[in-house]
Amino acid sequence: MASLLRASVWRLFPRKGYCSWGTQGKLSQGFVEALKALVGSPHVSTAAAVREQHGHDESMHRCQPPDAVVWPQNVEQVSQLAALCYGHGVPIIPFGTGTGVEGGVCAVQGGVCINLTHMDRILELNPDDFSVVVEPGVTRKALNAHLRDSGLWFPVDPGADASLCGMVATGASGTNAVHYGTMRDNVLNLEVVLPDGRLLHTAGPGRYFRKSAAGYNLTGLFVGSEGTLGLITAATLRLHPAPEAMVAATCAFPSIQAAVDSTVHILQAAVPVARIEFLDDVMMDACNRYSKLNCRVAPTLFLEFHGSEQALAEQVQRTEEITQHNGASHFSWAKNAEERSRLWAARHNAWYAALSLRPGSKGYSTDVCVPISRLPEILVQTKEDLKASGLTGTITGHVGDGNFHCILLVDPEDPEELLRVKAFAEQLGRRALALHGTCTGEHGIGLGKRQLLQEEVGAVGMETMRQLKAMLDPRGLMNPGKVL
Amino acid sequence: MASLLRASVWRLFPRKGYCSWGTQGKLSQGFVEALKALVGSPHVSTAAAVREQHGHDESMHRCQPPDAVVWPQNVEQVSQLAALCYGHGVPIIPFGTGTGVEGGVCAVQGGVCINLTHMDRILELNPDDFSVVVEPGVTRKALNAHLRDSGLWFPVDPGADASLCGMVATGASGTNAVHYGTMRDNVLNLEVVLPDGRLLHTAGPGRYFRKSAAGYNLTGLFVGSEGTLGLITAATLRLHPAPEAMVAATCAFPSIQAAVDSTVHILQAAVPVARIEFLDDVMMDACNRYSKLNCRVAPTLFLEFHGSEQALAEQVQRTEEITQHNGASHFSWAKNAEERSRLWAARHNAWYAALSLRPGSKGYSTDVCVPISRLPEILVQTKEDLKASGLTGTITGHVGDGNFHCILLVDPEDPEELLRVKAFAEQLGRRALALHGTCTGEHGIGLGKRQLLQEEVGAVGMETMRQLKAMLDPRGLMNPGKVL
Repeated sequence: MASLLRASVWRLFPRKGYCSWGTQGKLSQGFVEALKALVGSPHVSTAAAVREQHGHDESMHRCQPPDAVVWPQNVEQVSQLAALCYGHGVPIIPFGTGTGVEGGVCAVQGGVCINLTHMDRILELNPDDFSVVVEPGVTRKALNAHLRDSGLWFPVDPGADASLCGMVATGASGTNAVHYGTMRDNVLNLEVVLPDGRLLHTAGPGRYFRKSAAGYNLTGLFVGSEGTLGLITAATLRLHPAPEAMVAATCAFPSIQAAVDSTVHILQAAVPVARIEFLDDVMMDACNRYSKLNCRVAPTLFLEFHGSEQALAEQVQRTEEITQHNGASHFSWAKNAEERSRLWAARHNAWYAALSLRPGSKGYSTDVCVPISRLPEILVQTKEDLKASGLTGTITGHVGDGNFHCILLVDPEDPEELLRVKAFAEQLGRRALALHGTCTGEHGIGLGKRQLLQEEVGAVGMETMRQLKAMLDPRGLMNPGKVL
Repeated sequence: MASLLRASVWRLFPRKGYCSWGTQGKLSQGFVEALKALVGSPHVSTAAAVREQHGHDESMHRCQPPDAVVWPQNVEQVSQLAALCYGHGVPIIPFGTGTGVEGGVCAVQGGVCINLTHMDRILELNPDDFSVVVEPGVTRKALNAHLRDSGLWFPVDPGADASLCGMVATGASGTNAVHYGTMRDNVLNLEVVLPDGRLLHTAGPGRYFRKSAAGYNLTGLFVGSEGTLGLITAATLRLHPAPEAMVAATCAFPSIQAAVDSTVHILQAAVPVARIEFLDDVMMDACNRYSKLNCRVAPTLFLEFHGSEQALAEQVQRTEEITQHNGASHFSWAKNAEERSRLWAARHNAWYAALSLRPGSKGYSTDVCVPISRLPEILVQTKEDLKASGLTGTITGHVGDGNFHCILLVDPEDPEELLRVKAFAEQLGRRALALHGTCTGEHGIGLGKRQLLQEEVGAVGMETMRQLKAMLDPRGLMNPGKVL
């Protein structure tokens, strides 16, 4: 019975680490030779271990390996690979750092995984124009290391050191979005290899203007398309001035409502807060233990301010006033770089802190986003749902955007618990939809939220999305089985 | 010869005020009756004067009146009107305030003009969520009047008191975009009647979250689509906290380069300037005369800062340091509301100030946008081109975005001059394209820049845009002849 249940759970909510090799060997020897002819023999692999490594991301979605993995060295090769695969009806799956969390790289129909990490050059930096052009192998941290002495930085920060083009594909955001926007706000142009191999420059070849009203917004169409419309082979990104100084802080609140009210009041007062992150009591407790912090176990805000010394002083003062008015206590200010890093390392290690609450467990993260005024009710309800479901979970969120994650701990060997996690996540998604929200603020739809997407956008919205997919990928070969 | 030349000029660069009635009477009596049955007799007009009034915007594009004008009262009527027109193969042209400048409302194939100004309710205001839902008849100023006591405002300001949904359709921006973004950055959701009458909510019905990664970005697709993909019947907009205090300023520069360098340095120093506008010497001279200012006749920046009193003081100080370092002089600070209004009224009246340089002339505004570092060379070149062409023109621009307008004065009775204006505008467009820029930063493509759009986005870009159009409007009836 248990094994029967587990088998059905795999279909419902498949897990990382269990590889189905059913798709192995789909490709003819001739086709593999053709791949090798295009990119060179050392850049093609059909080895089981390599394919398995490319069949999953960091989520619990079941590993579904591609039939082959190729590493193109340049955009011409990507174009030729796409044309070859498309001509032969072979699915194409783009692969970056594999740090996604919605199963976006799982090769559900087999096919060729195109690993873009060998294309890792920073092609063009225009400091006076606040723009940079990166190939798909360039990660967020690599770019910021390159920018170190330029006075500029790229602030979108999902936590993982993801590839920037992967972040474009996911529509990533993270802790800085409240001030600097998400990827949707920070992409100026994209070079995209369409499924049939044609090369599209979404804002025109070589263009990097800051704004435009010229025709349809093709750039926006590809940001967040999760690899289902084409392969992003270069991104022109908007850069920001590196902050002159930074201050971080934490403070504790008597209730979730008080923490959210503070956030709303800070935003209404136009305090240009750079990060404002919520942690519930369970999350705070886990972070205290895992990262050796000493914060009060209570609903907590982690804040960060960017600006001149003088501007920071005022921001800090106003924030203290607002939060104290809402009953905050246990202020802790981190003014030097070391203290700040320690604080944000703790926040970014929240995932591991949560996992450490139950050693041996796996994590699953929800990702709903609601209008900020609806946060208190959905957070309170979520904590009640957690209790009722008997699941262990922590809550952390980008509260300035209305986006939060419930990190659920699950024993991968317990199919019944997996079912409860799945049910909880769906219920939470539907609660967000009922509160005018979205089922995903930044992780994407991937494999697991396709039903919720339908409920979210409605029949005409889905029809329009399906038309878009059919228009750009009429044979349905570009990262099939995702989003729609 | 002159009349022959003029006739051909109308085709090349047609003018406002000259109406061709060739399309009159295309609609059968039965069809007009069907329109009346849908919206009520008083809300349909086929009167020549009404049609003429709806056949042009504020540009020099020739008046091309629709065959009928209808005023729907609600979205259901818009949907029924679209379905009726689409079913009968009749072109549909959405109409807001008619304040566009690229001929976007000209009924080039006749058809039914759908005037949306009777739908002018503010449907929902969520102050804690910084969002508002407006019907298409609500203008920018009406919304801000409504928000007066809420502590919030909608900052996108193209100058004209345009309808907000019209601004969505155009992808408008204006003087505040450097800090608050353009319409592309400030639309959360759209209700769109598709050409066949179906109702699409681009982010799902009733949703107003701040960010999302759920499926393809349909909202972005309709912002800037210039009425060619559907009728926008409601927009959910992102609001911003009203500034606590404001300071405006002007200063003069020894050269265009010095003014642009100052702008780059201000942005690099992360001074959160709210407006930074460039006026060349000719424009400044015209504004001095027209608006009774007393600024030095030189390349000039108009600036505005928003924030707390304390933050303003620091922003002002830093800006003074930077601009003085670049040789600025003749600082004039406007701290009270009256002075500020006078300054910005002068900036917003730049169009009329330019026209007053040559009474009886008409104006034509170019709209290119380039990477900011390329502004000095294109501005200097543009001034040389002006001289060489013998045309009178002033330059004003949103220099923080790299976007500027050359307002050209033209005698509408002089076909040869019209040709020179057209040639100048095209040359300027191509100069911008050669400098990695766009032919339109905020006015849109409309009728006059379709060739430049092709050069800008390239063959695959155009093909993709044409596919999008064919996908959503397979019969080509939605505002035909625009953009593509």
